[in-house]
Amino acid sequence: MNDSLQTAPAWIAVDWGTSNLRAWAMSADGRVLAEAGSDDGMGKLSREGFEPALLRLVGSWLDTRPPVFACGMVGSRQGWCEAPYRTVPCPPLDADKQITAPTTDPRLSVRIAPGLKQTQPADVMRGEETQIAGALRLLPGYDGVFCLPGTHSKWVHVSAGEVVSFQTFMTGEMFALLSEASVLRHGMQGTGWEDAAFDAAVSDALSRPEKIGARLFALRAEGLIAGLSPAAARSRLSGLLIGTELAAAKPYWLGQRVTLIGAEKLSAAYARALAAQGIDAQRLSATDCTLAGLATLAPQTEIAR
Amino acid sequence: MNDSLQTAPAWIAVDWGTSNLRAWAMSADGRVLAEAGSDDGMGKLSREGFEPALLRLVGSWLDTRPPVFACGMVGSRQGWCEAPYRTVPCPPLDADKQITAPTTDPRLSVRIAPGLKQTQPADVMRGEETQIAGALRLLPGYDGVFCLPGTHSKWVHVSAGEVVSFQTFMTGEMFALLSEASVLRHGMQGTGWEDAAFDAAVSDALSRPEKIGARLFALRAEGLIAGLSPAAARSRLSGLLIGTELAAAKPYWLGQRVTLIGAEKLSAAYARALAAQGIDAQRLSATDCTLAGLATLAPQTEIAR
Repeated sequence: MNDSLQTAPAWIAVDWGTSNLRAWAMSADGRVLAEAGSDDGMGKLSREGFEPALLRLVGSWLDTRPPVFACGMVGSRQGWCEAPYRTVPCPPLDADKQITAPTTDPRLSVRIAPGLKQTQPADVMRGEETQIAGALRLLPGYDGVFCLPGTHSKWVHVSAGEVVSFQTFMTGEMFALLSEASVLRHGMQGTGWEDAAFDAAVSDALSRPEKIGARLFALRAEGLIAGLSPAAARSRLSGLLIGTELAAAKPYWLGQRVTLIGAEKLSAAYARALAAQGIDAQRLSATDCTLAGLATLAPQTEIAR
Repeated sequence: MNDSLQTAPAWIAVDWGTSNLRAWAMSADGRVLAEAGSDDGMGKLSREGFEPALLRLVGSWLDTRPPVFACGMVGSRQGWCEAPYRTVPCPPLDADKQITAPTTDPRLSVRIAPGLKQTQPADVMRGEETQIAGALRLLPGYDGVFCLPGTHSKWVHVSAGEVVSFQTFMTGEMFALLSEASVLRHGMQGTGWEDAAFDAAVSDALSRPEKIGARLFALRAEGLIAGLSPAAARSRLSGLLIGTELAAAKPYWLGQRVTLIGAEKLSAAYARALAAQGIDAQRLSATDCTLAGLATLAPQTEIAR
């Protein structure tokens, strides 16, 4: 889908993940002039497929040759071209470390932001560094912790403008696998939700995290012999997995200032779980943070506040 | 695949799970005269499909009308006909509680063994109760714990011939999902194995089970930036999941007599993990136990020892 523009964009923001490609035409003062998206994610493109996929999406925005700034898996080894990881501790983004993607269309100039790696314990991110940079622009002088819930949730300690350390959890992917592909799927139809079941499961997982292995099959068994509803089962699975994540991430959030960056519904669940532990987490939109982060790379631009 | 028999079978043993159907032609003195298997598991059969699937497999064994004794998911609500769960504590099998399946072929007489359920905490089993009955026949007077590793591992406390309590873990299914369907699959190609990586992961998970959420993605990250081999990654994933199971199952095995019933390679991994905790677990073959268990239902038969 393309949008025709009345105002020429100053630059184009691109968030290019494994499954999706999203683009925004941006004004010099940081407003979104148009947005577009497709399912041409990194995961299904060969190296030669990236430029055509981008042209399909934003070709009509390129008359004035606005530069494109991209983040995400597009910079991985399997992506358009590799933007080697930078090593923490370091600022989340560095304009000088961007990689220029090889292009043939003369209207295209594409810069890709590198991800971050941590040596010990080993960890990596691609895309979240841009959200963090954006969050730091939205919250100047922020010192504390960011939690970015998602397929692979990240907990990130930030101090003095640098990412100090981070840790990744497979919580979102586990929820998808267990609720859609495991024996538990039989008792989780629909999208129902029960706060009380979620809360109890978070508390259970946090107070006895070593029992997680024993809690999962009970969701199936209670569905079979005790009438557990699909909504309660879904909510409890989510609570068990988020609670297990919080148990392991405790050094990140205990006694810290915490800001959530993510999709609204998922962030709300994390905020609820953290509130039960006495943590009043602030929330930022992932898209706002991505755009604010990419804006730090686009020269002479501002962000709309 | 059918086998023609030189000796008429006294009875036929059937293990009918979600994915597979296996059958054995048995002599009166407990010897296996022939065996056959197919992928006509419960999961892909409609109610009308069970009798034809069984006839395809054992039709050539039926001239003398030997009775068929079956266990497993064939007795579930989605199976051939429901054999309602019996409630623990109780002996693992009770010949009087078998269900007769509806058949049209006059040569067929099929009895299905019920599974077991536990009310609090809710749990269920179908098929394992037969293996436990068989193990008790192979180990007369056994008091202690059985561990049945598999897709859904079971820990079972047995005393005075009765199943007292049990607990199910989704360890095998989690391993399959994570190693074949998650982001971790990229670093786990092949079937390589490293004992040292397995041992370290079991120990890590047992001593800090609350950290399981933080350990999984590290397998991917170390593959990307620290050269972790696929064999080490596979072994560590197995060790982390089995260690997490052992952490939650500790009340079952700590200071107990433990016997493993399962496939050889998987049982060996569990035995290794338990040995590191000072538990010298005995091992029985799952097939031997299934046949010995079904033999307790077939009148006037023995089992070969």
